[in-house]
Amino acid sequence: MATHHITVPAGFVAAGVAAGIKANGAEDVAIFAAERDVSTAVLTTRNQVVGAPVLWCRQVMPAGRGRARAMVVNSGCSNVCTGRRGLRDAEEMARLTARHLTERGGPAVAPEKILVASTGVIGRPLPMDRVRAGIASVVGRLGRRHDDAALRAIMTTDTREKSAVVQTRVGRKPVTVAGIAKGAGMIAPSLATMISVITTDAAVTPAALHRALRDASAGSFNAVTIDSDTSTSDTMVAMASGEAGGKPLTGRSPGYRKFAEALAEVCGELARAMAADGEGATRLIEVRVRRARTAADAETAAKSVANSPLVKTAVHGRDPNWGRIVMALGKSAATIDPDKLRVRIGDVLVFSRGKGRPFDEAKARAALGADEVVIECDLGLGRGGFTALTCDLSHEYVTINADYHT
Amino acid sequence: MATHHITVPAGFVAAGVAAGIKANGAEDVAIFAAERDVSTAVLTTRNQVVGAPVLWCRQVMPAGRGRARAMVVNSGCSNVCTGRRGLRDAEEMARLTARHLTERGGPAVAPEKILVASTGVIGRPLPMDRVRAGIASVVGRLGRRHDDAALRAIMTTDTREKSAVVQTRVGRKPVTVAGIAKGAGMIAPSLATMISVITTDAAVTPAALHRALRDASAGSFNAVTIDSDTSTSDTMVAMASGEAGGKPLTGRSPGYRKFAEALAEVCGELARAMAADGEGATRLIEVRVRRARTAADAETAAKSVANSPLVKTAVHGRDPNWGRIVMALGKSAATIDPDKLRVRIGDVLVFSRGKGRPFDEAKARAALGADEVVIECDLGLGRGGFTALTCDLSHEYVTINADYHT
Repeated sequence: MATHHITVPAGFVAAGVAAGIKANGAEDVAIFAAERDVSTAVLTTRNQVVGAPVLWCRQVMPAGRGRARAMVVNSGCSNVCTGRRGLRDAEEMARLTARHLTERGGPAVAPEKILVASTGVIGRPLPMDRVRAGIASVVGRLGRRHDDAALRAIMTTDTREKSAVVQTRVGRKPVTVAGIAKGAGMIAPSLATMISVITTDAAVTPAALHRALRDASAGSFNAVTIDSDTSTSDTMVAMASGEAGGKPLTGRSPGYRKFAEALAEVCGELARAMAADGEGATRLIEVRVRRARTAADAETAAKSVANSPLVKTAVHGRDPNWGRIVMALGKSAATIDPDKLRVRIGDVLVFSRGKGRPFDEAKARAALGADEVVIECDLGLGRGGFTALTCDLSHEYVTINADYHT
Repeated sequence: MATHHITVPAGFVAAGVAAGIKANGAEDVAIFAAERDVSTAVLTTRNQVVGAPVLWCRQVMPAGRGRARAMVVNSGCSNVCTGRRGLRDAEEMARLTARHLTERGGPAVAPEKILVASTGVIGRPLPMDRVRAGIASVVGRLGRRHDDAALRAIMTTDTREKSAVVQTRVGRKPVTVAGIAKGAGMIAPSLATMISVITTDAAVTPAALHRALRDASAGSFNAVTIDSDTSTSDTMVAMASGEAGGKPLTGRSPGYRKFAEALAEVCGELARAMAADGEGATRLIEVRVRRARTAADAETAAKSVANSPLVKTAVHGRDPNWGRIVMALGKSAATIDPDKLRVRIGDVLVFSRGKGRPFDEAKARAALGADEVVIECDLGLGRGGFTALTCDLSHEYVTINADYHT
């Protein structure tokens, strides 16, 4: 039975097909489309090496916001480090999608209104014959019943499908925000990338949508670190159809905050699902840093703990080894005073006033064995807070990434 | 048969004994001593959380240089996060060592002339009864025949002994520099730390020795990253007996450069041995970054590649997956221009002008299977260079760090 998510907000259609790009025969081409050009925001990777699709998105939407009709995505090949040919291929994906959407009826679609994302192996050219056939076929299937096929078409090493739908009210109008995401390693076995598509029926200006997306990603996707590696293709797109009605929200509208909260909730759910599905992960780790000197310090400290392979292996082994947590805080660029620091594993206080406390080891081990492990670090220095999301480091991570061959 | 290293330079004695601090009955207390107070330099960890022994070293040698008589080291317990009791214990180790050395004869020794280092589990108090007995016993064995026992006494999860001896000439005088080191994870299974002791018979001022040690460590120990985790106890000490004769070298002496080169060579050998013996390592990885915009950029870029778990697992799996190398360069804060970048695995060119090159895969796999794997990244932007040292990431790393319980 199909679950619905990305087309729940009115004004969107989606579909996914298997075009033979992935070797395993799974879906690998998807289109997410609005019925007309709608308010859109896009965020792309901070890696300095970026794929051709990222360059295309930046070319057609230089400020990261504007109006777009659709997004076309393929998995199985990331079109990264593929030279001029890669740029031509990304542009052709946009042109083909625009042409087929125009032929489908409705207002004519310009290629510049089509965003493109690709995920998969780095350094190989796209098999364009298959991509072309895939795009033609997927446009024919666009509708509100193929959410799942569209979601599967953006997945690579993911073991679980990740979607979220949140409903809220903006003024008196019910508004829906829905999202899907893929990503299991910041970069997976020679595959790349996180991709997320968010749809909403809210009426919202491109600038307000961009701001809400940026703010939401800071506390969600940008808080996830599976392996400290940043992919060359990360792309997040939010499209707002306006079907919920009303005047488009700006950043100053009274309803903006409610809308931004719903968007942040969708991003938060997707980010947690992504961390929990990290390569080789057996559980989610939440590193909550509180009372850091500054917000930036909180993020630095939380990510230092979340990226520490020694912390991640200790969680995997259910070892309440607080020395590694304290080490990871201390090595970070954030200000730390061991005498003011308090560390909890779950709700077990393990460290305060510069040294370890006697604690109930069985209880700490149980907290480390939970599906969601919480490590709380109260720095006692100020008001900065940040929660980083990661997963444990298991044998399976090494198997996935070492035993796999390109 | 014992090998000699740390006491090869004239003017030093050493010994190591098993005092019962380590559970496995191996040597765990060592003393390295000069026959009088000699020119000494000490570098300690940059982690903000530091052990009591590090605080003691900083207290007695605030500028990191001066004159010292000896260094006392224990393994099996790092005396980190142990509160006031830890500080008292570190000081007592210095006092006891000073007293026993004084009783042994020769000029009286002040406790402030004794440096202290401890390595092992974080957060447990030192078993001082055993430490006291160990110090008494080890002073009785000091001589030039117990180098190996002294070296074993500083080891934790190391699988190999790491020592180096280099001979050079300063002016017309033959000079010897010798060193030993331990360290397998930047922090090992709830154990800590890198420790290195360097001796030389050169006559050199504390300031010149400090400068030479700092410069040597920048390109050697500070270039090593096993797991990006920085321990709370890292300590390097260099002592110069002056027995080779001559006026003490300053940074401006004509012989300084030759001496500094010999010291750098010793540190370089020890650092390579440390990287090759990284937890779970099956081979050494040298990441050579050339022609970076600046020297700082070169270090940032080299360490980003050396710390990338995806690069380390790819090397482990002998997978010539250059996409991960390019990704790791791109995510770093160093300036990268993919169009100017050239990447080699061994001597196989795999990437240039923004894309992968056709290459001999068998040859690249062979280069990745060598004991010493070289990844060369020519950024084509300037004159900065840096070589980072690391090891592959194997199942054994996860076993050592997850399956081990404190």
